Amino acid sequence: MNLILFSPAEISRPLPRSDRRAIHLVDVLRRGPGETFDAAMINGPRGKATVRSITPEAIQLDFAWGPAPSPAPELTLLIGLPRPQTARDILRDATTLGATALHFMLTEKGDPNYAQSRLWSTGEWERQLLLGAEQAFDSRIPAVVRGATLSETLAVVCATKSSEPRIALDNYEAACPLSTLALDPGSPVILAFGAERGWSATERLQLREHGFAFAHLGERVLRTETAILAAMVLVQAKRGLM
Amino acid sequence: MNLILFSPAEISRPLPRSDRRAIHLVDVLRRGPGETFDAAMINGPRGKATVRSITPEAIQLDFAWGPAPSPAPELTLLIGLPRPQTARDILRDATTLGATALHFMLTEKGDPNYAQSRLWSTGEWERQLLLGAEQAFDSRIPAVVRGATLSETLAVVCATKSSEPRIALDNYEAACPLSTLALDPGSPVILAFGAERGWSATERLQLREHGFAFAHLGERVLRTETAILAAMVLVQAKRGLM
Repeated sequence: MNLILFSPAEISRPLPRSDRRAIHLVDVLRRGPGETFDAAMINGPRGKATVRSITPEAIQLDFAWGPAPSPAPELTLLIGLPRPQTARDILRDATTLGATALHFMLTEKGDPNYAQSRLWSTGEWERQLLLGAEQAFDSRIPAVVRGATLSETLAVVCATKSSEPRIALDNYEAACPLSTLALDPGSPVILAFGAERGWSATERLQLREHGFAFAHLGERVLRTETAILAAMVLVQAKRGLM
Repeated sequence: MNLILFSPAEISRPLPRSDRRAIHLVDVLRRGPGETFDAAMINGPRGKATVRSITPEAIQLDFAWGPAPSPAPELTLLIGLPRPQTARDILRDATTLGATALHFMLTEKGDPNYAQSRLWSTGEWERQLLLGAEQAFDSRIPAVVRGATLSETLAVVCATKSSEPRIALDNYEAACPLSTLALDPGSPVILAFGAERGWSATERLQLREHGFAFAHLGERVLRTETAILAAMVLVQAKRGLM
């Protein structure tokens, strides 16, 4: 936890001593009254927090904020709903690498039962976003949408934007390596990943109709979470952000 | 498990029914007598295995091998010994991405107690290599060395090779993004990563003396395992392998 994130509502009230951030502050960072640490408001400014007091019940904090962050370069990921352990890693690591929107979709070759996981029914999915942002030292967390089909997602995501590069990863049928595609620095990008067993023929057609180019990540077969990280790294490097 | 790996000694004897590969074959892939699956000899040829018989104690297999694999393009990683959970992920994922040698080193800012983990005292570290290679559909697993200091490692690794690019990742002091370095396709590469808290001043000097260039991965702060994956992806893409 390089940066500790707070929601706007939390700024004006004491932090419960049982909160994971309070435990980290006192037990790991060993901050006492008068000492400071790096803090940020979720999707807002970074700054310094000072511990005013620590009681067995709560920590009182004072904040001094810097300027608001600039908008992040858009990187939208469309992902066939993966198994919960994989989704957990993606939520955290895609946030660390700067995703601005994550759409977890129901796809033809995916397993809709994964949507029943405790990852989604408890607040765990949101906690992973915070962990990923805190790691990256960034206050910005991606918007998360889940439960829509690919065609519903495409209708929404592709209706409001028209010119950004759209790339679908496809290790079975793509002819072109993602690493050879050109991207403008700062350009918004949409990346689409199928579920573990890939895209159906119908889905490939839908993606093509919505202007997606198909690309692959080489001959080695990667786990879903590794493929997503790898594709994001290549895109961020091409855009001059890594 | 896209490919099931066997050591040369295992080829000629029955596979115990309790072995993780036997369990996968029967309970997940549901292969019965006469059916085949993709197999490979560790660091040797890939081929097809056919189930001859299944008893409660063992599975008898017949193998038909293809040609021996070509040598992998060398990618040597020097890594400050990380905490065991991180090392586990690195062993698996660096293998998947095509590392040919992994040196887990004792560094000044590292914690030598991590070497006492069950990851290293049991065969668990080796199992992670196999999982990574099976995922990648590759029979080749990296050589693993651990317990040497940085200077001992540099003396060995840099004594036998002289012309390959050597890059040390350093998020604190490097001026150049890794993504902007040029690499020849197929060129061997050595990448060095400090422990979680980075390199000491002495270590930076040693790396410089051994011809290492310093590079960073952008402004976002990455977990050690994510930084290693990201650097490997950029190197493999530059070498035309991704």
